[in-house]
Amino acid sequence: MATTPNPDRRNERARRAILDAALELCSTQTYAGLTMEGIAKSAGVGKQTIYRWWPSKAAILLEAITERADQSLDFPDTGDLLADLRGQMYELVRLFTDPMFGAYGRGLIVAAQTDPAISAALLDTLIRPRVQLCIERLAKAQQAGEIRADVDLAVVVELLYAPLYYRMLLHTAPVSSEQVDSVISLVMSGIRP
Amino acid sequence: MATTPNPDRRNERARRAILDAALELCSTQTYAGLTMEGIAKSAGVGKQTIYRWWPSKAAILLEAITERADQSLDFPDTGDLLADLRGQMYELVRLFTDPMFGAYGRGLIVAAQTDPAISAALLDTLIRPRVQLCIERLAKAQQAGEIRADVDLAVVVELLYAPLYYRMLLHTAPVSSEQVDSVISLVMSGIRP
Repeated sequence: MATTPNPDRRNERARRAILDAALELCSTQTYAGLTMEGIAKSAGVGKQTIYRWWPSKAAILLEAITERADQSLDFPDTGDLLADLRGQMYELVRLFTDPMFGAYGRGLIVAAQTDPAISAALLDTLIRPRVQLCIERLAKAQQAGEIRADVDLAVVVELLYAPLYYRMLLHTAPVSSEQVDSVISLVMSGIRP
Repeated sequence: MATTPNPDRRNERARRAILDAALELCSTQTYAGLTMEGIAKSAGVGKQTIYRWWPSKAAILLEAITERADQSLDFPDTGDLLADLRGQMYELVRLFTDPMFGAYGRGLIVAAQTDPAISAALLDTLIRPRVQLCIERLAKAQQAGEIRADVDLAVVVELLYAPLYYRMLLHTAPVSSEQVDSVISLVMSGIRP
């Protein structure tokens, strides 16, 4: 019995290999150049194996990027709201300005414009869970009296993060930690009691 | 002599026909489906005529949309900053939520991600002139003491407009006049003296 391969473990190995292969290919391939065939070949699995778990390269990338991002984009709660926001947003700036993550983030947002399934996956996998974490951190600050009680925290999250996406997608200016500082400073002036 | 066609007038007629044809085709064609050939045919001119003036369909669309937008997105100065911001941003919401303008705006932003010439044209033709108009209106308010002297007006413009682009491109929620009201209200709390 001990020599029978455990299908769960085998599946997890294949899943890991596919996600790792997708991320590795990101350093050498453009978003447009990345294919399911390429990922399968690089992971040493059949294309069918990939399609059993993911409908598109966008879905694989979303899962791979989310896993990687999870480790760095968690919302800290040190008790110091300003420091927590700044730290988390600096980390996002690092991702947005990383040539590989930046290009693939843009590639996914582009794909989401014409493919509702990718748009839904982008929202459910990457955006909404992080918006929720930020709202929870802001809600603690609001309960502690650091933010006015009448402030709609969902609007605050948009005001904080939208300017980073705006610069990343419209290229009006580089996304930067200086931008984060100016944005946090203005937003905080508007929401303090 | 009076019967010799005036080349300037002929050129202006052809230019007008091309821009009108491009905008008209937008109602029946997707951004991807729109071609230089289609625009030329619909405008009744040769493809060479189009290529003499514009390098790409994106360039034609930018000029056509900018002309159309110019009439509706001017920055008013009624002396009431809130009303002026609200009026201008409601007009932008109307464009973003118009099925045709919305789709083509997204199409141009998508094209800008992989084509630096389109990105530069988008910035120079559409974005920067309007950012400048907004900064000028805010600067008057700042001189009149309605905005704190230390506030960086370029950051204010990003805070005001980025949330509309964020919703349009990430589809987190519909772009709406209610969003404009919440954004203006929070941003104003942060910049008032």
